[in-house]
Amino acid sequence: MFNLDNFIRRAVKKLVPYRVPNVNCVLKLDAMENPYNLPEDILLEVIKEIKELKFNRYPDPMCSDLKKIISSNYQIPEEWVIIGNGSDELILNLLLAFGRNENKILYPYPTFEVYGIIAKMLGLKTEEIPLEKNFKLNSQKFIDYEEDSIIFISYPNNPTGNCFSQEAIYRIIEESNSLVVIDEAYFGFSDKTFLLDVQRYPNLIISRTFSKMFSLASLRVGFLCANPGIINVLLKVKLPYNVNSFSQIVSKVVLSKNSYFKKKTEEIIEERERIYCFLQNVEGITAYPSEANFILFKVENNQADYVYEKLIKKGILIRSFKNISPISDCLRISMGTKEENDIFQEKLSQILSKAH
Amino acid sequence: MFNLDNFIRRAVKKLVPYRVPNVNCVLKLDAMENPYNLPEDILLEVIKEIKELKFNRYPDPMCSDLKKIISSNYQIPEEWVIIGNGSDELILNLLLAFGRNENKILYPYPTFEVYGIIAKMLGLKTEEIPLEKNFKLNSQKFIDYEEDSIIFISYPNNPTGNCFSQEAIYRIIEESNSLVVIDEAYFGFSDKTFLLDVQRYPNLIISRTFSKMFSLASLRVGFLCANPGIINVLLKVKLPYNVNSFSQIVSKVVLSKNSYFKKKTEEIIEERERIYCFLQNVEGITAYPSEANFILFKVENNQADYVYEKLIKKGILIRSFKNISPISDCLRISMGTKEENDIFQEKLSQILSKAH
Repeated sequence: MFNLDNFIRRAVKKLVPYRVPNVNCVLKLDAMENPYNLPEDILLEVIKEIKELKFNRYPDPMCSDLKKIISSNYQIPEEWVIIGNGSDELILNLLLAFGRNENKILYPYPTFEVYGIIAKMLGLKTEEIPLEKNFKLNSQKFIDYEEDSIIFISYPNNPTGNCFSQEAIYRIIEESNSLVVIDEAYFGFSDKTFLLDVQRYPNLIISRTFSKMFSLASLRVGFLCANPGIINVLLKVKLPYNVNSFSQIVSKVVLSKNSYFKKKTEEIIEERERIYCFLQNVEGITAYPSEANFILFKVENNQADYVYEKLIKKGILIRSFKNISPISDCLRISMGTKEENDIFQEKLSQILSKAH
Repeated sequence: MFNLDNFIRRAVKKLVPYRVPNVNCVLKLDAMENPYNLPEDILLEVIKEIKELKFNRYPDPMCSDLKKIISSNYQIPEEWVIIGNGSDELILNLLLAFGRNENKILYPYPTFEVYGIIAKMLGLKTEEIPLEKNFKLNSQKFIDYEEDSIIFISYPNNPTGNCFSQEAIYRIIEESNSLVVIDEAYFGFSDKTFLLDVQRYPNLIISRTFSKMFSLASLRVGFLCANPGIINVLLKVKLPYNVNSFSQIVSKVVLSKNSYFKKKTEEIIEERERIYCFLQNVEGITAYPSEANFILFKVENNQADYVYEKLIKKGILIRSFKNISPISDCLRISMGTKEENDIFQEKLSQILSKAH
């Protein structure tokens, strides 16, 4: 008799599907998306490219043109780059290539949850290293692991927003004997990077994405930089046609418009500082400094859930961390446009004035 | 000391990267692509949709709108469908969900090579069941496996072009105790399907793609149909935002233009029959009947490689099977437009007249 239960991998049985909250709000400030859609002139360029697109042909499996532009923009040779269907796919590829049962997958806690989700899905052993006071990285704990491990560090860290000390990260890279993945998804907003260090450290991998600074969350493009030894192994586990042709084309277009995106990024940073100051001055709230496009803030007196739900009722979706114990009293807001942030300010003030 | 070699998974060490031949030919008749790009009116609809696309927002993780249309077009409830970044990703998901070390992954030989590539990459045990005379399926061999196995059947089979006997396939589904995946990538060209059988058999999964009949190889969209018990496990291993927004939108558009694609499919089938007759009448060639958009043909007297190379010199890329022993004397041509096929006929005749 056929019994599906006999087929399900043990690691998968324990999982619950990753759920993206299905709340319909006018203001979506929960997912660290860029609040700006592509501007008219870039859209026109995209449309021009589409008219030439061979929809009926398979994509370039090596993303050669896009890789060339990434290589020249970031001063890194082409053989040091691999492109994926979003960084998520590259995390999966990394763990498919290097995640042996003997290894441990280490990451700070709290951090971007997808590292742990994918590692657990693959049945790998994971260990969360709690962040210290002020969300400081406990580098010694990472170094103390004797087994070879794979370490994921989000820089700046999601959801706390801070960049960990560079010194602490260098210690981990140099002393841990581990494969260290630094996820620089929010690079544009911090302007701090370990990218060029891949040439010094054979165990270092940098992850970047087009989803944030370049407004392309819809198109799923991320890339890794590391030495060719690492890239060549990743190419073995990559599905042949993983990045679709349209995403390759649009990524090339946005990379050629760097100054536009830099300007927009500066606007978002200004907004972040403005909202940070605002939150700092709200009674009952402690905001944490951020180098990303979002801010984590603590709501006193167990009011986080109340504020979260009230904001939804007023049409604003932000992110709650109800089940993430060290920050269960925190909420995270992604930066919107100035107008959107103004509405958030106004609604939050209304909610808190009623709460007191 | 950091040593990358210690990290590489054993299964991955043995792999060579999947290579897509990088031969530049005017006529690309190697990859079973549809020879027709999207027509002007569909392109205009796509462009209209793009103007509304929120590039900066993450895609719908559940592909809800696309799933609705698939559900209504194919008469299958939405909960019975999962959509992937091409069928390749869905094969990976299937094996991540159900590929236990105790299982064997079985498939005919020769068949679509990606089943074996992904299974081996994951370190799973594979077994190729050789096709019999006239590329007939040896159903008994599939049934005789005592362990629970996962069986992949390409229907019609790539690269041989034939649809296996329905009776043989039903026997496997009913008697094997295995999870049976029927890959109907070339469905449009055969018009034979097991799709509605998923409601009768709890161990049956059907795979479809937009890459062939719907001219969307560039955009990477495939879907699986199976009972919700299977789909719900697959949802656990699926990366949250696997199908990008643009691909979701364009797939919806093409599905609404079914009659156009049906007409084009009929043209391709007519061409297939015409080229099959042509090849049958060429001395030194045996063509195999096909229900797909490609034809496998045998070249006598060890001339396959000679013909393949000569065709490339004349600007025509088809597919060689040099290293696939049972068909190492065969070549496979994907159907082009009538004009393209005419050129192929002419060049092939030239080559063979010189060879004799």
